[in-house]
Amino acid sequence: MRIDMVKVNENYQKLPGSYLFSTIARKVNAYSEANPDKKMIRLGIGDVTQPLAPAIIEAMHKAVDEMACAETFHGYAPDLGYEFLRSAIVKNDYLARNCDIAVDEIFVSDGAKSDSGNIQEIFAKNNRIAVCDPVYPVYVDSNVMAGRTGTYDAVSETWSDVIYMPCTMENDFVPEFPRETPDLIYLCLPNNPTGTTITKDALQGWVDYANRCKAVIIYDAAYEAYISEKEVAHSIYECEGARTCAIELKSFSKNAGFTGVRLGYAVVPKDLKCGDVSLNAMWARRHGTKFNGAPYIVQRAGEAVYSEEGKAQLKEQVAYYMRNAAVIKNGLTEAGYTVFGGVNAPYIWLKTPEGMTSWAFFDYLLERANVVGTPGAGFGPSGEGYFRLTAFGAYENTIAALERIRKLGL
Amino acid sequence: MRIDMVKVNENYQKLPGSYLFSTIARKVNAYSEANPDKKMIRLGIGDVTQPLAPAIIEAMHKAVDEMACAETFHGYAPDLGYEFLRSAIVKNDYLARNCDIAVDEIFVSDGAKSDSGNIQEIFAKNNRIAVCDPVYPVYVDSNVMAGRTGTYDAVSETWSDVIYMPCTMENDFVPEFPRETPDLIYLCLPNNPTGTTITKDALQGWVDYANRCKAVIIYDAAYEAYISEKEVAHSIYECEGARTCAIELKSFSKNAGFTGVRLGYAVVPKDLKCGDVSLNAMWARRHGTKFNGAPYIVQRAGEAVYSEEGKAQLKEQVAYYMRNAAVIKNGLTEAGYTVFGGVNAPYIWLKTPEGMTSWAFFDYLLERANVVGTPGAGFGPSGEGYFRLTAFGAYENTIAALERIRKLGL
Repeated sequence: MRIDMVKVNENYQKLPGSYLFSTIARKVNAYSEANPDKKMIRLGIGDVTQPLAPAIIEAMHKAVDEMACAETFHGYAPDLGYEFLRSAIVKNDYLARNCDIAVDEIFVSDGAKSDSGNIQEIFAKNNRIAVCDPVYPVYVDSNVMAGRTGTYDAVSETWSDVIYMPCTMENDFVPEFPRETPDLIYLCLPNNPTGTTITKDALQGWVDYANRCKAVIIYDAAYEAYISEKEVAHSIYECEGARTCAIELKSFSKNAGFTGVRLGYAVVPKDLKCGDVSLNAMWARRHGTKFNGAPYIVQRAGEAVYSEEGKAQLKEQVAYYMRNAAVIKNGLTEAGYTVFGGVNAPYIWLKTPEGMTSWAFFDYLLERANVVGTPGAGFGPSGEGYFRLTAFGAYENTIAALERIRKLGL
Repeated sequence: MRIDMVKVNENYQKLPGSYLFSTIARKVNAYSEANPDKKMIRLGIGDVTQPLAPAIIEAMHKAVDEMACAETFHGYAPDLGYEFLRSAIVKNDYLARNCDIAVDEIFVSDGAKSDSGNIQEIFAKNNRIAVCDPVYPVYVDSNVMAGRTGTYDAVSETWSDVIYMPCTMENDFVPEFPRETPDLIYLCLPNNPTGTTITKDALQGWVDYANRCKAVIIYDAAYEAYISEKEVAHSIYECEGARTCAIELKSFSKNAGFTGVRLGYAVVPKDLKCGDVSLNAMWARRHGTKFNGAPYIVQRAGEAVYSEEGKAQLKEQVAYYMRNAAVIKNGLTEAGYTVFGGVNAPYIWLKTPEGMTSWAFFDYLLERANVVGTPGAGFGPSGEGYFRLTAFGAYENTIAALERIRKLGL
């Protein structure tokens, strides 16, 4: 018998603690169980609360009925998504904005979280990644699992091989070109968690930079539907030259309430190449080998997002959440907090009170106001001293949460 | 400006050709477009044709209605799946068979293809994999992408670092313990594509072998519902000691017709460890970081699979397909073919006519009988000289296909 045995991916052991939102869920559950009488208001994870729009519900019922009948039953979906959905995406999200994107550059998936986690697989291990700090934890964590991030320093809470681009009130939350040249640049704009974004001109600067240094931008546009300002781009392909340097990830979770429905897509332009290797072909191969398509019913639901009724209903839904954003932003400002975001995104980013870390403020709000938010430090070291509240709650709960926070004083 | 640029995962470039079923789809589409008058019968990919059972349709409609109302709306699912589904799985698929599996050892996913492709991620790159030959292509391809398979030899169509376990008529399709010791052993039983399987006693031998050499078995039980013989195990956990050496992957695609619905699960026992590292904890971390749960509606559909009505209806559905299997098996046998499988699995594995490769037979059947099957060589070098037909067609089409094949003569 050999002493040798199966070996695990040791990169997993390098990950400090658990996934941020799992940790929060555990803390909240423990508090709720110990205090069953307290009514919690959850403005923590970015989960939506409003029901699916009627046009979407109707499309789903119709699709379920199709699955009940041999003549209209749908088995395996086409690898990269149904043509009806990919066409609707191209027409509405790209051609309508004069972005030159073709149907075979759209890859339908089960959500932007999967895409953000999986996209790094098509790149070599020795690429250097750059991320905004703070940012959605999946970018870094998935690269840790792949062994691309070097060693972790518990004091600074940073990885030796990750390039951090701090986004704080000191630089108006606008990432600056890093001193070291990155290979993969993750940009989430409008940003999660800060709720801030950059102008189209500034984004053009990033596209030019990436083309200049032959890097690829992974552009997470999950919050695009919340953009209200004219000078902000809805897609990176509004910028000249983005087809040769950018992959765009889109979600249906936030614009259409699909967090529990699961649908997203990635755009990988055919002009995006490393030498003569097409990233579009690589991603197609990844999809074909390790994924089997989003459910037919869900893809029909996605199509309904682009119907005239769907668009009108979802415009109202986005407005509902942005009214919450205004409630939080104004309420906190009146209470004396320093507040950012909430204009082009459903997130409010606040400075924690003097001398209170972001996890301390998490506990404070949880225990004293029974309001759940997300500690900024969970999104990266530059998130320390900040705290995220989401506008995705019910209106009444949002009002009530702000009332409780105001009562606490500052 | 640097000369250096972003680098791709070069393992992808090692993959010969495209994913098997994508290649077949392209060939069939090309033939259909050139011959629009021909009525094709598809017994190629393992896609089902019968509609979803009434109990499942009812559950889905109900779940869609819940999503239409704020009080019953469901956002993000729990990372690892809803408790209602995980409990139903444990009760019906494990406790009912005296298998000791707990709810927190079940990981609900969007399907067994994703799980089969992703599971290798939690293991180190320097593990040696062993696969049955022929077998479902995803096991090898996903390990190629991860850089675990060495170099490809185009003549033998094998990878230098993969241990192949030939399953041919010469050994009654029963894999033998390999000479070199593997770290990860992929077993798909009942087997895709051969439609054959092994007895519970033989499987116990594999469990003992894996425990002895400290290897992990990835046990793909996607076709479990088609087992008709008493001496065949429905789960690897029916074997003693499997909790310390086996991960089981299950699909709802074949037992419940979910190919276009997308649902599966993985079982990772807490006793499965490498040193003191828990694979259960690693897979939980992978799920939490790179996946966001299967849709609520789909998980409710999965729950209905285990209802009394659902079970009765699906028993009939499985019987429907197994009647097709008998039609194919008997028809081919009468036509003079040598035929395997079709007793514990919905696949028929036939010897191609003397002097005809499996791709030549594919073209022959496509062009002369307008019947689509799958060439054995696509599943591995030992699949050469064999051909797969599936029992998942409509009964009438299956009868018609066999009529056409019989007319061709042998």
